[in-house]
Amino acid sequence: MIEIDGDRLLRDLRALATFGKAGTGVDRVALSVPDIEARRWLVGRLSEIGLRAGLDQIGNVYGRDPQASRTILIGSHTDTVPMGGWLDGALGVIYGLEIARAARGTNLPGGIGIDVISFEDEEGTYLPLLGSRSFCNDLTADDVANARSRSGAALTAALSSVAREQAPFRLDQARHLAYVEAHIEQGPRLEAADIGIGVVTGLVGIRRFRIVAHGQADHAGTTPMSMRKDSGATLIALAHRIGSDFAPLGGPDTVWNIGNIVLKPGVANVVPSEGEMTLEVRDTDTTILDRLEQAVNDWVDTASKAGPVRLTIEPTTRIPPTLMSRKLADAMAAAAMEIGDPSMVLPSGAGHDAMVLGRIIPAGMLFVPSIGGRSHDVTENTADADIVAGCRVLAAAVGRIMSTLA
Amino acid sequence: MIEIDGDRLLRDLRALATFGKAGTGVDRVALSVPDIEARRWLVGRLSEIGLRAGLDQIGNVYGRDPQASRTILIGSHTDTVPMGGWLDGALGVIYGLEIARAARGTNLPGGIGIDVISFEDEEGTYLPLLGSRSFCNDLTADDVANARSRSGAALTAALSSVAREQAPFRLDQARHLAYVEAHIEQGPRLEAADIGIGVVTGLVGIRRFRIVAHGQADHAGTTPMSMRKDSGATLIALAHRIGSDFAPLGGPDTVWNIGNIVLKPGVANVVPSEGEMTLEVRDTDTTILDRLEQAVNDWVDTASKAGPVRLTIEPTTRIPPTLMSRKLADAMAAAAMEIGDPSMVLPSGAGHDAMVLGRIIPAGMLFVPSIGGRSHDVTENTADADIVAGCRVLAAAVGRIMSTLA
Repeated sequence: MIEIDGDRLLRDLRALATFGKAGTGVDRVALSVPDIEARRWLVGRLSEIGLRAGLDQIGNVYGRDPQASRTILIGSHTDTVPMGGWLDGALGVIYGLEIARAARGTNLPGGIGIDVISFEDEEGTYLPLLGSRSFCNDLTADDVANARSRSGAALTAALSSVAREQAPFRLDQARHLAYVEAHIEQGPRLEAADIGIGVVTGLVGIRRFRIVAHGQADHAGTTPMSMRKDSGATLIALAHRIGSDFAPLGGPDTVWNIGNIVLKPGVANVVPSEGEMTLEVRDTDTTILDRLEQAVNDWVDTASKAGPVRLTIEPTTRIPPTLMSRKLADAMAAAAMEIGDPSMVLPSGAGHDAMVLGRIIPAGMLFVPSIGGRSHDVTENTADADIVAGCRVLAAAVGRIMSTLA
Repeated sequence: MIEIDGDRLLRDLRALATFGKAGTGVDRVALSVPDIEARRWLVGRLSEIGLRAGLDQIGNVYGRDPQASRTILIGSHTDTVPMGGWLDGALGVIYGLEIARAARGTNLPGGIGIDVISFEDEEGTYLPLLGSRSFCNDLTADDVANARSRSGAALTAALSSVAREQAPFRLDQARHLAYVEAHIEQGPRLEAADIGIGVVTGLVGIRRFRIVAHGQADHAGTTPMSMRKDSGATLIALAHRIGSDFAPLGGPDTVWNIGNIVLKPGVANVVPSEGEMTLEVRDTDTTILDRLEQAVNDWVDTASKAGPVRLTIEPTTRIPPTLMSRKLADAMAAAAMEIGDPSMVLPSGAGHDAMVLGRIIPAGMLFVPSIGGRSHDVTENTADADIVAGCRVLAAAVGRIMSTLA
């Protein structure tokens, strides 16, 4: 049993939060001065507990257990969005530090060790999941050469501050038996259910569509209702159908969003000539995503043929779901039960580094509650007791995982 | 019987269309050089036929029958929108010229004469209905001082080109027994019904509303459907209800339009925090406008109370309907029947100078078909035969109106 120290964990989390501190949150975007300073601090902390730790040329921090040839990799990311929260990925990294520290000197099953990692730029200041993609050798030279921040700054220029660091750390499938990542939920479900531990079933796939209605601009005073080709009314009818008919076709965790509607010319007295709508659908189940895509394609087709407004639909984003390892999830749920903390299973609606690693090695994710569901904001927070409980459950789960692998 | 000359009518319409000619249309915005040149040309044409004609300091052209103390006033406007059509208001002005010319030397009932007018800036380059409002003494010094074009040009500066013309012509209720205005329909109804003469029942009232949904921005991946405050979905539900439930509450000619929808922040992966929608309703019947306004207020109120998204509605425009004189409309319909031209009654969905005059003296409007319903564009047109038939019917109607007033 790995016995973590809750106070020490919280002290380290608070120490990390001083880098880029911004009121109650932190502003520590990838490759900024505070981000690099935080990463050097982390290298120091990992080295103190006997890991062989360093920073690489992409900004990843990796602490390697020198006594083990097979390990569980624990981590997440320490970069943030601009004016972000103090936990987010930092939580999972410091869980890794604390669990590795607590495991020192204990006899771990099968001689399996613990490696700790903090990936760079998970948030996509330059390139989403940059660090985990580099670690998994899933980046081309072009990806790096072309990546720019929203304000136009080149990733290559930002990387100059780590150019003299170590060659990129890589995933080693012989060594890294599994990857476990803790993260704040970034949603309201755990809090609403009053449950402290979320065991993630998978990271949702995302499909986005642009739907365009091709109508005709007419004078809204002189054109009778029956003679219009109203692209706005056509989109409203379709949006309404999605709102009422998606739910029975989806699963319990399916989510969708019509995030934007634009009507042209967009004035009170002209019947909209053209309308555009953005639809996003997320689920961990490809069958459900396929069914919903088929349904909306059918509705677009039927409405377009019925007229008088022609509709077109085009997919714009297509990210497949990543299932978490069932064995790792079971170990987390069993650990929570053993400790006596209620847990629930849920999908991750957002992307995480576990998405990249989970395609190659068994990966698992554990969520702790987000107060008010808030994240990516300085108001983001989690109760201290929930933070400590999450780490205790993850440590126990890591022990269980080692036993099954020993 | 006033016998008009169709060829002469078409020649004058085509002569007028040379001022500001732009391909198949004309570009003759109020107080531009071609507009003033066209107005001076019109003063000449009206003078030739024995009217006492002139231009006033607001840009109105008025031809006064010197032999009569009581007259029917016939006219419309000769200014256009930018890159507009060759007919629009010009049609009604040249109808006035032709009918006054044809009436010369005939014995008109009761010694009633014919005055002809072309109002300035009906299209609102600087101030919608400027000329008819000036004629009806419905303009304050402030209205004129504050009016600016969309590009910021001051009306007062534009008026300098007519500053040395006559003092503003005014409506004289003792003299002007009625106002009749012909205009292209600017809509598709006459063409669709294959009918050449439209007798206008009234000019619609217009009510516009801004409806705002006050929701909450949430991550569209991590927030379950049931826990959202989706301002977009709330507006879509309301828009759908308007689309399905307005028709049975309205009359046969009621029209409405949702011309714009704006969702914030307007991105694929964020549940819309705020949504805004523009609703416009038009009808000639105030009872119907009241009923629809009450209905949408009720729906907003019910949805807002049901939650989870608060809705607000605020009226932004409120133009009352103007009914045309029933007697004048009957005279037009009877004239059409006498001549053997099919006619239909319909409302005017757009504004016209007759709206301003109709609040003070009996006013009537006659529409001729717009090919493809097009207007305010260089492609605007009406078949020559329809143009001539419209003038013939209007002339006969003027004769009938004189008889009833004699």
